[in-house]
Amino acid sequence: MPNPTAAMLVIGDEILSGRTRDANMYFLAGELTKQGIALAEVRIVGDESEDIIAAVRALSARYDTVFTSGGIGPTHDDITADCIAAAFERHIDVRDDARALLAAHYKNTGSELNDARLRMARIPDGATLIENPVSVAPGFTLENVHVMAGVPSVFQAMVATVLPTMTGGAPLLSQSLRIDRGEGDIAGPLSELAATYPDLSIGSYPFQKNGAFGSNIVIRGTDGSRIDAAISDLSELFA
Amino acid sequence: MPNPTAAMLVIGDEILSGRTRDANMYFLAGELTKQGIALAEVRIVGDESEDIIAAVRALSARYDTVFTSGGIGPTHDDITADCIAAAFERHIDVRDDARALLAAHYKNTGSELNDARLRMARIPDGATLIENPVSVAPGFTLENVHVMAGVPSVFQAMVATVLPTMTGGAPLLSQSLRIDRGEGDIAGPLSELAATYPDLSIGSYPFQKNGAFGSNIVIRGTDGSRIDAAISDLSELFA
Repeated sequence: MPNPTAAMLVIGDEILSGRTRDANMYFLAGELTKQGIALAEVRIVGDESEDIIAAVRALSARYDTVFTSGGIGPTHDDITADCIAAAFERHIDVRDDARALLAAHYKNTGSELNDARLRMARIPDGATLIENPVSVAPGFTLENVHVMAGVPSVFQAMVATVLPTMTGGAPLLSQSLRIDRGEGDIAGPLSELAATYPDLSIGSYPFQKNGAFGSNIVIRGTDGSRIDAAISDLSELFA
Repeated sequence: MPNPTAAMLVIGDEILSGRTRDANMYFLAGELTKQGIALAEVRIVGDESEDIIAAVRALSARYDTVFTSGGIGPTHDDITADCIAAAFERHIDVRDDARALLAAHYKNTGSELNDARLRMARIPDGATLIENPVSVAPGFTLENVHVMAGVPSVFQAMVATVLPTMTGGAPLLSQSLRIDRGEGDIAGPLSELAATYPDLSIGSYPFQKNGAFGSNIVIRGTDGSRIDAAISDLSELFA
């Protein structure tokens, strides 16, 4: 059985402007790989309704699961929840269960549950809430889309809530071998190795250090003994 | 006149598996912003021909310029050049000008210009070469797509070659102000400020530090005096 597929949609101008370096995609990619879920595509779009809606529809239709990051706070540029509702043609409004979470939290902390904060209780009809142990305002799951916060500590906490509920395939294993030769010297034999192990993914990631060229060869698959065998063959090829 | 738009397509399994943290997107985003070109969308796809071709076509049709990163080396998983040719229905083969660059380089370094290395001279008909001062194997420009290497030092050198040839808009300026209150407290007034300055983009980027919530407000635009005025209003709002 092939591994389940996932996509990620990062929403926010701050990544596109170069102001912020993405952390959530890198984190999610690693977590999904451990779980045996293949992250197959990532898109990053700005705070524009049409772009968000189009991307959600395209990714949701194509992949088993979609994760979104960003745009669910209380400010005017936080439009993700409304866009997810629009993408699936659902009604959206402040929902009682989400409002109750926020009301209890702000009562405890002595802050006012004002109109801006109430925006964070806007949840599309039919969605399931995702717990936010860091700052309470929930994420939600609608159809096959998990909608999560952009703040990395909150995003990571939400991923920790959602991932155990997902059924992964066999974990994707990998081994790598560093070869201190230019890719051009190893590409031919490497291509033959890849043909010998069609069940494995063999990638070559070149680097340059102190003026010398080399490449990290990464072999991925779900059968550890096959990976062992391929790494052994690889070592002999370039011993 | 609106600023020109750009998109980026990152090609490579290593980012999607979480093995490598992207550096090229972050670099390009900053360089484009300085030049007054708005990075409007990023997609990351794996080493799959159909996915690459579809993404190139979609982004090329929609944005003024597209930058790709990755997949132009000598190994079996380097399929970007062939995919770009397919996306624009161009013939592709080893081209004499690219072969001459590689032949001179490998003669100097004493390496063999073997079949694998010759793959790096495969250039679609009608494309213009992009110089690679780091490791010689060129990138290329076809239509509105700049095809560049994934190794960060090479990618950055190619961006330095391409960017001066592009006409940007007025540089995008920005100022930011850190406000040590939760987003829920500032969202209302911030929304009114955004309505007062429709020519500026006002973003709120919440953070959490030592258990306290705050937000960095970033105001972007092309008119420095307008940004000054908005920042001044903002300071007064939360003084």
